[in-house]
Amino acid sequence: MSLVVHKYGGTSMGSIDRIKKVALRIVKWHNAGYQVVVVPSAMAGETNRLLKLAKDITIEPDNRELDMLASTGEQVSSALLAIALQSAGVPARSYAGWQVPFRTNNAYTKARIVSIDDQLIRSDLSSGKVVVITGFQGIDPNGHITTLGRGGSDTSAVAVASVLKADECLIYTDVDGVYTTDPRIVPEACRMPVVSFEEMLEMASLGSKVLQIRSVEFAGKYRVPTRVLSSLTDPLLDLEEETRSGTLITFEEDEKMEEALVSGIAFSRDEAKVTLLSVPDQPGIAYSILGPVAEANIDVDMIVQNQSVSGMTDFSFTVNRNEFQKVIELLKNKVIPAVQAKELATDQKVAKVSIVGIGMRSHVGVASLMFQALSNKGINIQMISTSEIRTSVVIEDQYMELAVRTLHHTFGLDQI
Amino acid sequence: MSLVVHKYGGTSMGSIDRIKKVALRIVKWHNAGYQVVVVPSAMAGETNRLLKLAKDITIEPDNRELDMLASTGEQVSSALLAIALQSAGVPARSYAGWQVPFRTNNAYTKARIVSIDDQLIRSDLSSGKVVVITGFQGIDPNGHITTLGRGGSDTSAVAVASVLKADECLIYTDVDGVYTTDPRIVPEACRMPVVSFEEMLEMASLGSKVLQIRSVEFAGKYRVPTRVLSSLTDPLLDLEEETRSGTLITFEEDEKMEEALVSGIAFSRDEAKVTLLSVPDQPGIAYSILGPVAEANIDVDMIVQNQSVSGMTDFSFTVNRNEFQKVIELLKNKVIPAVQAKELATDQKVAKVSIVGIGMRSHVGVASLMFQALSNKGINIQMISTSEIRTSVVIEDQYMELAVRTLHHTFGLDQI
Repeated sequence: MSLVVHKYGGTSMGSIDRIKKVALRIVKWHNAGYQVVVVPSAMAGETNRLLKLAKDITIEPDNRELDMLASTGEQVSSALLAIALQSAGVPARSYAGWQVPFRTNNAYTKARIVSIDDQLIRSDLSSGKVVVITGFQGIDPNGHITTLGRGGSDTSAVAVASVLKADECLIYTDVDGVYTTDPRIVPEACRMPVVSFEEMLEMASLGSKVLQIRSVEFAGKYRVPTRVLSSLTDPLLDLEEETRSGTLITFEEDEKMEEALVSGIAFSRDEAKVTLLSVPDQPGIAYSILGPVAEANIDVDMIVQNQSVSGMTDFSFTVNRNEFQKVIELLKNKVIPAVQAKELATDQKVAKVSIVGIGMRSHVGVASLMFQALSNKGINIQMISTSEIRTSVVIEDQYMELAVRTLHHTFGLDQI
Repeated sequence: MSLVVHKYGGTSMGSIDRIKKVALRIVKWHNAGYQVVVVPSAMAGETNRLLKLAKDITIEPDNRELDMLASTGEQVSSALLAIALQSAGVPARSYAGWQVPFRTNNAYTKARIVSIDDQLIRSDLSSGKVVVITGFQGIDPNGHITTLGRGGSDTSAVAVASVLKADECLIYTDVDGVYTTDPRIVPEACRMPVVSFEEMLEMASLGSKVLQIRSVEFAGKYRVPTRVLSSLTDPLLDLEEETRSGTLITFEEDEKMEEALVSGIAFSRDEAKVTLLSVPDQPGIAYSILGPVAEANIDVDMIVQNQSVSGMTDFSFTVNRNEFQKVIELLKNKVIPAVQAKELATDQKVAKVSIVGIGMRSHVGVASLMFQALSNKGINIQMISTSEIRTSVVIEDQYMELAVRTLHHTFGLDQI
């Protein structure tokens, strides 16, 4: 008998009507003979509502108590889903993370899963029940409730699928899969029926919001076949059709995948660029600049250090635009006096565009094809960074859409 | 060091501002050297909101899932109170019922407490923390969440006070104590500084809404000194004054208590009277009539069977007005054909008025003083029932206020 894990996001669980639709969909799978474990998120808006109550008391509420508070959102949606399933005639039972249990470390508000006990779940599945498990949460070694951080329900679902050796983990969400790029920018973008785990990881880290990056890492580590698909389709959609919909994240790379140079185009407008001009080009200079930035918990994305000219160099890096002000103040007050930079140049009008594809591993010249295509459109490349299966460039942000469309076309991703 | 348990109702916890006030009050006790355990209810309206979500799915949701759902209300308010305490500079920690644990049987939605583990609480108290515990809930022998039913937080508070051998259990609520009768009807009514457990039990069962009857039973069984007092006073009210405010339910009857014939006047307009006329006066007739009523889960309050006349008798009883229609249908369809009653007479315009006092034990003639006082005002008594410390009468409901005022005056309860 096949075992599947379903995960439903906050929007899918956003109202009683939607919860009833989710129940109908699960009933369809149950009646077709699948063993089903369901991991729902809190009803849309609920986690924010709860956290706001705490923030209304104090700007820095205790993390342990925040987890006590926030974990109730999933307990509510799980109980409601179990009730909806029962009312649709299917035996069901909901469990909070601590009941399964999902054991985690004690890093409140961003805990890591340590182990999951499968005994309770298997026993209920054997007796014909649908098992509903609160996502996003667990219990630490001292019996305190923990949460996994934003989007943690994806991770819960993939983790429980891994422990149960589920045939597939289905992440139902409000998009119908992973696209070659954002269809709002390139109407010719098309859904990828299959994407490799490595590509998905790059897409997630580049700002594609489809899946939380930790859940992708988890899926990769434990090789859990994970499918992203739409919860907005008719819940009574033909099951065969549903099992082929969305995007499957796979670990078996076939020849067809290797053939494609590039699978998708990712982009992000959340970047800001900072350049320190004329700093002494001496050992340890990168650390002198970026050490204080890291200490302030600011993530640095791309880093470029120019060729040294008479012992001086320019040093550029990008940060998330939200942290731009913070980093500027830090540089002015601490770093610039210390490294004796001549000048500080900043640019918030930048964007990052990336090509991603496991085909890049076995094909040389993919990056230069990218540079050529951008150059043909007169788009100047300010910074470059690469991984084995990705090349990213920073460009002036007004050219972002043009760059994405150009690359989508260049690498043959346009829908036929 | 003195140990106290505080319980705060839903209104006291009804908003962030109110939760902050509750925290201020607790800080005052903590700073005065008390060890404090707090049992908050869910924020006002929250339990109803959660149950309505379930009822929107199905009219008969599963009780186990209802408890998963409803128990989150107290978890939220407890976490928020712990955060408010911490933000006021006092170390605090919140626990859900299952964490303490509060062990209960598995009667979902109306579970009974079996035992409470005091280890965790004592360890936190020893380390100087205020311990916040979710009221209303526990965990059954199989690890499922249970709730104690409406008003269960009072019971949780009294129960944990009993286990901890607390010096006092303080029930903070929106009234400032137990009154000789409802001040809205008798402006001269006065707060009782002390009331005996037995009297409180009678008052609770007669409809005084100050304390849930189960919590009073619990307080009585384990002799927990329990005080009902106002949460609406200034949280910074002088502590000495606060410890003397409200009404203390006591187990030590002093002479002064015995001196008073009557301590309070209770009343209820929720009654309806039903009379079966001319039923055969034969053994088993009461069971033939009331057996089916009990089977239908309808509570019968007073019962009167008249003197038999030529083998026939009239049989009257009262039920809650909410169940009046149900009982009438039952009598017409089942009971009357079976017992061959001649006629059915009904009266919804009745009220019950009761005098309560442990002084009645040692003084004869208290009941006749009551009957005389009512008679002097021309109020006809339709039914009478008595216990060791209570006498109740059913009268026409338009005379209820007059009867309550008359008795309040007759038994010397008017405020001087």
